[in-house]
Amino acid sequence: MPRIGQYRKGIAKREEIIEASLRVIAEQGYRGATVQELSKAVGLAKTSLLHYFESREDLLVEVLRRRDELDSAEFEGLSPEAGARQLVRTVRQNAGVPGLVELFVRLSAEATSPEHPGHEYFVERYAAARAAGAETMRGLQETGLLPSAADPECMAAILVALIDGLQIQWLLDGDLDMGGTIEHFLSVLASASGSEMSTTPGAPVRG
Amino acid sequence: MPRIGQYRKGIAKREEIIEASLRVIAEQGYRGATVQELSKAVGLAKTSLLHYFESREDLLVEVLRRRDELDSAEFEGLSPEAGARQLVRTVRQNAGVPGLVELFVRLSAEATSPEHPGHEYFVERYAAARAAGAETMRGLQETGLLPSAADPECMAAILVALIDGLQIQWLLDGDLDMGGTIEHFLSVLASASGSEMSTTPGAPVRG
Repeated sequence: MPRIGQYRKGIAKREEIIEASLRVIAEQGYRGATVQELSKAVGLAKTSLLHYFESREDLLVEVLRRRDELDSAEFEGLSPEAGARQLVRTVRQNAGVPGLVELFVRLSAEATSPEHPGHEYFVERYAAARAAGAETMRGLQETGLLPSAADPECMAAILVALIDGLQIQWLLDGDLDMGGTIEHFLSVLASASGSEMSTTPGAPVRG
Repeated sequence: MPRIGQYRKGIAKREEIIEASLRVIAEQGYRGATVQELSKAVGLAKTSLLHYFESREDLLVEVLRRRDELDSAEFEGLSPEAGARQLVRTVRQNAGVPGLVELFVRLSAEATSPEHPGHEYFVERYAAARAAGAETMRGLQETGLLPSAADPECMAAILVALIDGLQIQWLLDGDLDMGGTIEHFLSVLASASGSEMSTTPGAPVRG
């Protein structure tokens, strides 16, 4: 069955390109994300790379999707409070890969346009992030870490927006402590509910 | 003094172009923001338009700067609580001009790159927004509308991030109520401090 073999090889090559691109952008920054640089990293000609993806944007969306999968795996089976702590950890890790943060910020902004190849990905990603966030918020509320006046769905949209907005501010001002700011936000909500998050208290210190 | 006269005419023309561009983008959306469309709107040739601005990006930054001035004027002399209510109003108004929201989202993302002509504008804008926000947060804290555990500087970065992040979500999902979400955020903080914001209570309803 040569055709199935070919197909499998194609899938494997696609995966290899996505993995290599994720690594290149994480290590060399967003400016390394040209088709030329990415092709070089996987040892392919420019035209060959675009044989596996419809466009550069198409490949970049797959890179973000892969990162989502890796990040999501860290949240599996966690309690709402542990999930909130893991979120802070994920955001802190992001500060170590500015190229991926920039990729996300740039692509999410461009993809607000319905014609962008990444539009559907982002629409679905945000809907899923809000749904997962609402689940966590309901859990935090049940354990007294979120004021009872708060609406879990709405707080989820707020948390997601907060992460995105902080990324923009951080790219413009590297002294901003993204993880510490989110930690502070969660601890203010917890203390407002008369509880305490088991994270470092206090406001983040600007580096 | 013909040279000063020329200079004044140049300034006046620049202002006219900025005003017209703001109107075109507000009315026709971000896609109307091509040099061609903007030139047509002010009755100039493409090359003449670029005689007044170094680039399209340069003009678009000035459009955002003009909008900031118009928005800022609405906050003058307001108490912290009235300022918070005005913020909700401003965000609600933004939902009526998606083109300007898209312009802001796209340009702020692109301008995180230090080479972008708008980089300095955004660095300064965010520093100023956080400073003004911290002032408001301190005022809200004094009047019991923000929990005492909250750090005003940090809450200001959070509020600014929240507004930016919600814009992205709203462009991707028009049912999201940006103003209502921010109102909910402020009212949760107020109720967590044992007070009540004099705004509509409860969670926003998705349209």
